[in-house]
Amino acid sequence: MEISAIKSELIKILGKDKVLTDDLDLMYYSYDSSFLTKLHPKAPYAVVMPRSTGEVQKVTRFAYENNIKIVPRGAGTGETGGCIALEGGIVFDLSSWNDIDEIDAANMQVIVRPGVIHAELNKELNKKNLFFPPDPGSSLMCTIGGMVANNASGLRAVKYGCTEQYILGLEIVLPNGEIIKTGGQKTKCIKNVSGLNLNKLMVGSEGVLGIITQIRLRCWPKPKARGIAMAVFDDLDQAPAAVLDVYQSGILPSGIEILDSSAISAVNQYKPEINLPRAEAILLFEVDGNPPSVDYEGSLIKEIAGKRAVSVEWATDPQRMNELWEGRSVTATAAARVRADGTRVFAGEDIAVPLDKVADTLRQIRALAAKYDILVVNYGHIGDGNVHTAPVINPEVPEEVEKVQQLVHEIHLLAIELQGSTTGEHGVGAVRRQYAELEHGPAVKYMQGVKSVFDDKGLMNPGKLF
Amino acid sequence: MEISAIKSELIKILGKDKVLTDDLDLMYYSYDSSFLTKLHPKAPYAVVMPRSTGEVQKVTRFAYENNIKIVPRGAGTGETGGCIALEGGIVFDLSSWNDIDEIDAANMQVIVRPGVIHAELNKELNKKNLFFPPDPGSSLMCTIGGMVANNASGLRAVKYGCTEQYILGLEIVLPNGEIIKTGGQKTKCIKNVSGLNLNKLMVGSEGVLGIITQIRLRCWPKPKARGIAMAVFDDLDQAPAAVLDVYQSGILPSGIEILDSSAISAVNQYKPEINLPRAEAILLFEVDGNPPSVDYEGSLIKEIAGKRAVSVEWATDPQRMNELWEGRSVTATAAARVRADGTRVFAGEDIAVPLDKVADTLRQIRALAAKYDILVVNYGHIGDGNVHTAPVINPEVPEEVEKVQQLVHEIHLLAIELQGSTTGEHGVGAVRRQYAELEHGPAVKYMQGVKSVFDDKGLMNPGKLF
Repeated sequence: MEISAIKSELIKILGKDKVLTDDLDLMYYSYDSSFLTKLHPKAPYAVVMPRSTGEVQKVTRFAYENNIKIVPRGAGTGETGGCIALEGGIVFDLSSWNDIDEIDAANMQVIVRPGVIHAELNKELNKKNLFFPPDPGSSLMCTIGGMVANNASGLRAVKYGCTEQYILGLEIVLPNGEIIKTGGQKTKCIKNVSGLNLNKLMVGSEGVLGIITQIRLRCWPKPKARGIAMAVFDDLDQAPAAVLDVYQSGILPSGIEILDSSAISAVNQYKPEINLPRAEAILLFEVDGNPPSVDYEGSLIKEIAGKRAVSVEWATDPQRMNELWEGRSVTATAAARVRADGTRVFAGEDIAVPLDKVADTLRQIRALAAKYDILVVNYGHIGDGNVHTAPVINPEVPEEVEKVQQLVHEIHLLAIELQGSTTGEHGVGAVRRQYAELEHGPAVKYMQGVKSVFDDKGLMNPGKLF
Repeated sequence: MEISAIKSELIKILGKDKVLTDDLDLMYYSYDSSFLTKLHPKAPYAVVMPRSTGEVQKVTRFAYENNIKIVPRGAGTGETGGCIALEGGIVFDLSSWNDIDEIDAANMQVIVRPGVIHAELNKELNKKNLFFPPDPGSSLMCTIGGMVANNASGLRAVKYGCTEQYILGLEIVLPNGEIIKTGGQKTKCIKNVSGLNLNKLMVGSEGVLGIITQIRLRCWPKPKARGIAMAVFDDLDQAPAAVLDVYQSGILPSGIEILDSSAISAVNQYKPEINLPRAEAILLFEVDGNPPSVDYEGSLIKEIAGKRAVSVEWATDPQRMNELWEGRSVTATAAARVRADGTRVFAGEDIAVPLDKVADTLRQIRALAAKYDILVVNYGHIGDGNVHTAPVINPEVPEEVEKVQQLVHEIHLLAIELQGSTTGEHGVGAVRRQYAELEHGPAVKYMQGVKSVFDDKGLMNPGKLF
C-alpha cells in the first residue's frame, strides 16, 4: 500500500485528531535518546494516538491485513532506538493515553493505561500510602507502558527489583488484532501461578510481541523514613568491597550508587558549589523503612563502610539528604557539559557486571577510553553491578563518531567477557541486537520462535532485540 | 517402541544403577500428593535418575527420536499430579542430583542442580549470612528444581515474592536434546534485561517446556531478627481489615497467616495442649529485619491490629515465637486427623482471591462444605489472599469421593467468580487444567503456541497446565 493511502486510511479509522501525517510532526518520531537515531533518524509513515483498546485493535487489524509494520512508543526516553520505525510503518504513540483506571488500595494494586507517567502515578499512590518502587532516572517523563516494555528499574532495583516484579496482569493487543489478558482474564488477586507465565514474558519484550494497552501493577506500602550515607574512597577496590560488607551485615539498602573519579570531576566542573570530595570513588547508600530501622542501618553503614572509606557521612535531614544526593542527580547533566565542544552520547551506557568485577570494569573502561582518547564519565547502580558510562564527544567530527562506536563496542564485549550483560536496564532495542547470539547462544532461536507465535507476520517492531 | 525395549535401551544409555524398571519401583512414581493420583495412580514405563546434563540430554534425545513422553520429577511433594506420567513415558527423577555447584557470596547468588532440597540450601547459605527467601511448607523435602517448575512460594511471599523473583538463570534441556541457557549463556550478573525473558517463562512452566538441569538463584542478606504477633478475632471480617491496616501503616510483614474457626478447632482437637483461643479467626504476623525495626513493627502491629482484635500477643523470644506459631505449623497435620475415619485430600486446596474478598471466600467455602456435608479446614497465606482448604473425607466411601469432587469444583469456580485464581502457589498440573480457558481465555491458545516452540512433538509432560 502506498504511504499516502496508509495515511488517509488511518484518518478514516481514527479521525484526523488522532493521526499525525505531516513531515514536521513525523520528524519528532524519528529519534529517541539513542546516539544511533541521532545519527540515523528514521521517520514512520504515520503516527496514531489511540485512546482505547478498540482503537488500538482497529489500527493493528488494518496494519495486519496490509502487512504494515507496527511500532509502539511511550515517551521516547529510551536509549536504544526501541521505539523507532527503522523499517517504516506506523508508530503507536501511547503517551497521551494516561488514565489511571483504578487505584485499588484494599488489594494493593493499580490499573493504568500505558501513557501514565511514572512520577504522576507515584504522586497519586502516595495519597493512599502506597508506592510503585522502581525508580528510573526519567521518572518525570517516562511512561508506565514504556517501563513495562523495557523492564525498567533504576535506583531502587537493589532492594525492590525491576518493573517485572510488580506486573500482575497486562492487556495486550496482538498484531493480528486479537486481545489477550496475561495474568488471568479478570483476576484482581496478587498471587497466581495458573498457566504459562506470559505476563513476565511480555515484560521487557520491547514491543516485539504486541501492544500493551492496560497494566495491573502491584503496589507496596510506602516506607515512612529514609536516610542517605555518602562514603568517600581513595582506593577504587574498596568501594565494591564496602557494598559487600554492608550486604553481609544483613542490610539491603534501597539504593547504592557510585560515582567514580571521572564523574566526581564532571560534577564539580558543572556545579562547583556541590564541591564533591576529590576521590577515586564516592558511594551513596539510600536506606528506607521505618524510622528506628533507618537510624539503625545508618549507624551500621557508617561503621562498616567507615572501615574502608576515607569518610562516611550519614543524614536523615531532608535538606542534607538532598545535598548529599545532588552530585548523583546532576551526574548525567554534568557529563553532557564536561567538554565545551562536546556532548554526551547514549551508546554503550548500560552494561551490568558481577559485583566483584565492578572495580575491574571501571578500570578497563578508563583504559579503553584512554586508548580511543575519548572522555568518559562513569557512574551507576553499583548495588546491582549496573554501570552507566557516558562518552563525551563532538558528534560533528566524523573521527570522533567512528572512535566512540569502536569504544562502546569494546565496552559491550568487555561486559560479556566479565560475565556480565550489555544491558542492565535500558534494553537491547536496535543498538545492542548484534550481541544477542553472544549473550544467549542457542536460546536466541527460541526467542525468535516465541516471537513468531504472537507475531506470525513479523510486523511488530522489527529490527529490535535480536 | 515396546515398553520392554525402552527399558533395555535406557539401561544401555545410563547403566543399570540409574534406571528403574521393576513394577514395585515404578509404583512409587505413580502418584504424588494429589487426590487425583491417589484415585488414579499411573506408573511410567521407566524412571531414569540422571546425574549430569549430558545424561539428561542422552535420554531426551532417545525419547525424542522414539516419540516417548518425558515427565520431570523432583521430590513428588506436588499436589496436582504434575510429575505423573499420565500418558505413559519416562519419568526423570532429578531428586538425587543435589549438587550445590557454587555459593558465590560476593555476587549474592548460588548455582545448584535441580535435586537440592530447599531446607538444605538455606542451611548452607546461612553460613554465608545469605538466604533464599521463598519458604514452602514442604521445605524439608521439596527440591529447588520442583520449586522453579511450580513457581513455589509459601509463607513469605507477602514480602519476598515467589521463586520467580530469584531466578537469575536456568540451564534447560529441551525434549529434542538441545541445551539452552536462559538469563544469559555465561553471566553472573544480577541485573540483566537482554533478550526475551525466557528465564521467567520457564519458571512455573511445570515441566511442559523442558527439563531444568541447573539453576542460578539470587540470594538476599539474611535478616538478623524476627518476631511473631498472634491476633485473635471474634468477627471474621475484622481479620482481613486488620491486614490492610497493617499495610497502610507502612509495614510489609514477612508473613501473614490465617486460621479460621475450622482450623482452630482442628488444631485444638489434634493437640489440646496448644490450646488456641476459640475464635472466628486467628492471624499470625511474622516480621523480620534488624532488631530495632522488628521491635518497632511489633509494637505497631499490636496497636493497629489491637483495634480490631480481641487480643494481640507479640513475641520475639524464640521459644514463645515457636509456641505462637505451633498452631499454624500443625494445621495441615491436624486437618488430616480431624475425623477418625477420614483423611485430608489435596483437591481444591490452593485458591487465591483478592484481599478484600478473603472473608467472603471463607464464608462461602463453609456454606459449600455444609451443602455437601463435608468437613473442611481453612487456613492459608491471607497476606496475599491464598486460601488453603482441606476437605476431610473417607476415601473408601464412593459417595464422599463423588461429593468432594463436586465441592472442590465449586470452590474453584468460586475463586474465579471472586476475581481470584484456582491456584496461588501449588500449580495447575493435571487437576486444574480444566479451568485454563475460564481463567485465561484466548491467552491459552498462545500458551500452547509457546509450548510448541520448545516441544514441537508434544512430548514434554503432556496432560498438564492446559
